[in-house]
Amino acid sequence: MPIVNIKIAKGRSIEQKRELVKTITDVIVKILDVKEEWVSVLIDEFDRENWATGGQLHIDKFGKGCGKQSSKNE
Amino acid sequence: MPIVNIKIAKGRSIEQKRELVKTITDVIVKILDVKEEWVSVLIDEFDRENWATGGQLHIDKFGKGCGKQSSKNE
Amino acid sequence: MPIVNIKIAKGRSIEQKRELVKTITDVIVKILDVKEEWVSVLIDEFDRENWATGGQLHIDKFGKGCGKQSSKNE
Amino acid sequence: MPIVNIKIAKGRSIEQKRELVKTITDVIVKILDVKEEWVSVLIDEFDRENWATGGQLHIDKFGKGCGKQSSKNE
Amino acid sequence: MPIVNIKIAKGRSIEQKRELVKTITDVIVKILDVKEEWVSVLIDEFDRENWATGGQLHIDKFGKGCGKQSSKNE
Amino acid sequence: MPIVNIKIAKGRSIEQKRELVKTITDVIVKILDVKEEWVSVLIDEFDRENWATGGQLHIDKFGKGCGKQSSKNE
Repeated sequence: MPIVNIKIAKGRSIEQKRELVKTITDVIVKILDVKEEWVSVLIDEFDRENWATGGQLHIDKFGKGCGKQSSKNE
Repeated sequence: MPIVNIKIAKGRSIEQKRELVKTITDVIVKILDVKEEWVSVLIDEFDRENWATGGQLHIDKFGKGCGKQSSKNE
Repeated sequence: MPIVNIKIAKGRSIEQKRELVKTITDVIVKILDVKEEWVSVLIDEFDRENWATGGQLHIDKFGKGCGKQSSKNE
Repeated sequence: MPIVNIKIAKGRSIEQKRELVKTITDVIVKILDVKEEWVSVLIDEFDRENWATGGQLHIDKFGKGCGKQSSKNE
Repeated sequence: MPIVNIKIAKGRSIEQKRELVKTITDVIVKILDVKEEWVSVLIDEFDRENWATGGQLHIDKFGKGCGKQSSKNE
Repeated sequence: MPIVNIKIAKGRSIEQKRELVKTITDVIVKILDVKEEWVSVLIDEFDRENWATGGQLHIDKFGKGCGKQSSKNE
């Protein structure tokens, strides 16, 4: 009964979330031999001021937003 | 020094939370042989648009709200 | 569809675990107005060399084991 | 820089894990507009005696193993 | 590629967060022999009404705020 | 009462862990204005076959071991 937790930057649309949980669930069902109704997916959204890589907050590193289009320095 | 993390849909009252953490702590103390002050309980609230089972977001499956009374299709 | 994660020191018996998950589930169902089959409980066991409070590993602070009976300095 | 944590029952082969992390990463890259190298996936394996749904340990409910083929009562 | 998750009460300034993630990253790099860019730090903020120790919500135990200066009974 | 969870590859010595939890705790106390005894640190160890970045398991990408010295391709 897999439980998938996905930590992402805030700002995705409900359409993206809907597609994400459906596709992830299909992948899990196919590869892990479990029933579809066993799979839970949780989306855990973080502000960029609460996430850092390489010792630098993402708000400082990338500016506001989410995804690579809004990541000014990468 | 048990740490309990409870993921639930948003929308419970502070009275429910107060009763929940007190009762869970009592259960842990009794069954696991630990001191009451060792037990931490964290409530991690999720929007229904960030939670899915069976590949479907709970906002689509149940509508808004929390608990079984507000779960239209279950 | 609450998901409860309980982090504890390794060493509890299966009887303790069985009683723990049953009692926790009953508490959640009663206080949060959810169906019993919606509740998941995961027990996440840690070695005392992987857990610290106050800057000190529990293996150094308490010695081996789990629970207050085996916690020599507390 | 999404971080995906997948909690599953112990017992999957390395081939299943390899396919799982590759496919999940592809899905995330495609839907969330992120770079492939930004995506981390962690597989968090649990014994069936440490996982319960509906108040019952999976070892008691399903017996040993993982996946629906080894789940005797479901 | 260490991933550090820090659960704290809400209310810290961005300057505190900036210093926190930088210092934690430096510590990890130095002690664990990893590259700086491998280290992720996530700050997971909780309301005091969602956190309890000893069976009591922190909002009831300490009042509003965060840190020991705003913890009236401790 | 901060709770720090550090996910790392398996294989660090107890001396490294001891230094890690002590130093992390000192940092948290200093920056976040909390009491030392409030800080919990948990070390969550993963096999390299359970961790992936960029869609590739670390066991395939780096080989066995932990830290940058044992990471053949990085």
